[in-house]
Amino acid sequence: MSRLLILSRNADEYARLIESAGLPDLELTSQPEECDIILGEPKLIRDVLPRLSSPKWIQSIYAGVEPLVAPGQRRDYVLTNARGVFGEAMSEYVFGYILFFEKKMLERIETQQSLRWQRPDSGLLRGKTIGLLGVGSIGAHLAGTAKHFQMTVKGFTRKSETSTQVDRYFHGKDLLKFAEGLDYLVSVLPRTEETNKLVDAKLFEALPPHAIFINVGRGNAVDEPALVHALNEGKIAAAVLDVFETEPLPEGHPFWTTPNLYMTFHTSAISYPEDLTKLFVENYRLYREGKPLKHVVNFERSY
Amino acid sequence: MSRLLILSRNADEYARLIESAGLPDLELTSQPEECDIILGEPKLIRDVLPRLSSPKWIQSIYAGVEPLVAPGQRRDYVLTNARGVFGEAMSEYVFGYILFFEKKMLERIETQQSLRWQRPDSGLLRGKTIGLLGVGSIGAHLAGTAKHFQMTVKGFTRKSETSTQVDRYFHGKDLLKFAEGLDYLVSVLPRTEETNKLVDAKLFEALPPHAIFINVGRGNAVDEPALVHALNEGKIAAAVLDVFETEPLPEGHPFWTTPNLYMTFHTSAISYPEDLTKLFVENYRLYREGKPLKHVVNFERSY
Repeated sequence: MSRLLILSRNADEYARLIESAGLPDLELTSQPEECDIILGEPKLIRDVLPRLSSPKWIQSIYAGVEPLVAPGQRRDYVLTNARGVFGEAMSEYVFGYILFFEKKMLERIETQQSLRWQRPDSGLLRGKTIGLLGVGSIGAHLAGTAKHFQMTVKGFTRKSETSTQVDRYFHGKDLLKFAEGLDYLVSVLPRTEETNKLVDAKLFEALPPHAIFINVGRGNAVDEPALVHALNEGKIAAAVLDVFETEPLPEGHPFWTTPNLYMTFHTSAISYPEDLTKLFVENYRLYREGKPLKHVVNFERSY
Repeated sequence: MSRLLILSRNADEYARLIESAGLPDLELTSQPEECDIILGEPKLIRDVLPRLSSPKWIQSIYAGVEPLVAPGQRRDYVLTNARGVFGEAMSEYVFGYILFFEKKMLERIETQQSLRWQRPDSGLLRGKTIGLLGVGSIGAHLAGTAKHFQMTVKGFTRKSETSTQVDRYFHGKDLLKFAEGLDYLVSVLPRTEETNKLVDAKLFEALPPHAIFINVGRGNAVDEPALVHALNEGKIAAAVLDVFETEPLPEGHPFWTTPNLYMTFHTSAISYPEDLTKLFVENYRLYREGKPLKHVVNFERSY
């Protein structure tokens, strides 16, 4: 018999969904000491980690598992994270903003408010170029939506070239070549040491001045003062940030008053219990059969 | 030898594109009297129609050909219109606005301006229902994009059921049944006698109060006072109009001051000379071979 502990603000809904899945040899527990499986939010899990007697498997309901892979945390269990479940929501968010800019929606609202029948030019995604910093499952989904809208897709990855929807891949030293000619640059990079400040002044300099930068990955990937400078100086046209180096964004942070910066607050994709339960059920079946689980986190690489 | 007259504000670009296509036995002319083929804008064509000696074929660069099918106009030629070329731009426009509402973009901008880290709920298109009033080539394209975003698609047509991306079709008297439960209602209806005021008070009453109405078809399809009433009374949540009964929208029209109404001014899809030239070239080849042309307009049905 396996004992599952659920640690989430939506614990009741998860419990209901998992019970209705009727998984064999699984019972729910509320005691960290007696569980061998945990499903939940990384921060809540980290708080109980020292009290676990023999954790076997922990399924994060988030993609980012920073609290659990931080140095000094125990690693005597299999950690799996949420992947393949955020692509749809991320695509809606990213292409919502891309179309918001491309169709000049704020300008159209202003035109209407001025009570004038005016027909400003607005653009077409078809034929535009999007650059994806990071092409994992979310990046691949974004590439698919970009292709639906007949865009050209450039991808920058460490070395993988798995998505066939990417027209051209770039790696390592070719970051600035990757940036050339992009209309939209979207970062979906996870927080790792390698991604620290990858989006810096040189990268902004390499982008065309009409380019728009969107960050739905992690805040560490951006050199924040360099972004403030790029927006103030018109090196790029606008930026949309859903993630920040420090969250919540501190009072007095220059971002609050930077022009052409649109901010949302870590809401580009939320974890839907239905999606996560589906992933948990799939992984639980593999776990029971002693097979490798899906989306195992490499503690060294942090994702 | 065929003689082509081009009547468009982009005539120079069309001439350049058509000349570079190197079509056999075709020369350009600037004299209406000596042409047998015209490519251009319906209004400009209407003005020269009486002067043509023997028009054979007229290719409209717009989808709407109202000026040419109006009663009393000559009909002694084959009229083809622009179809299959606006789907992409229309999809970008329609889904741009749908995502603008679904992602609550204006609320997010206000949250940011209040300097607060807040995480308002925003929705997901996946699982929402879109209703398409009219499923021709544009409607079919919209259905494809809706499916990309995993929406449920309902279609209302006179009788055709050609797009397989529509989950369920409705016809004739089932208009109100079609409207039930829609999150988004999009009209792509052409201007015909049958479409006059199809979108009326009863239809707005049948929609859920959170529904959003988007019109990218023709203005005649909407009972405009009924829409003003529906928005004032909160029968629906918002509307986006690109087309109007009278264009340009007259000064003092109640739309200018109706709440939750977003207006753009007949710019949801413009005719790109590259697209139209491609269609013209295709049709010219058929014309030379004496085969039926693509997108022939039925003068009685007006489309």
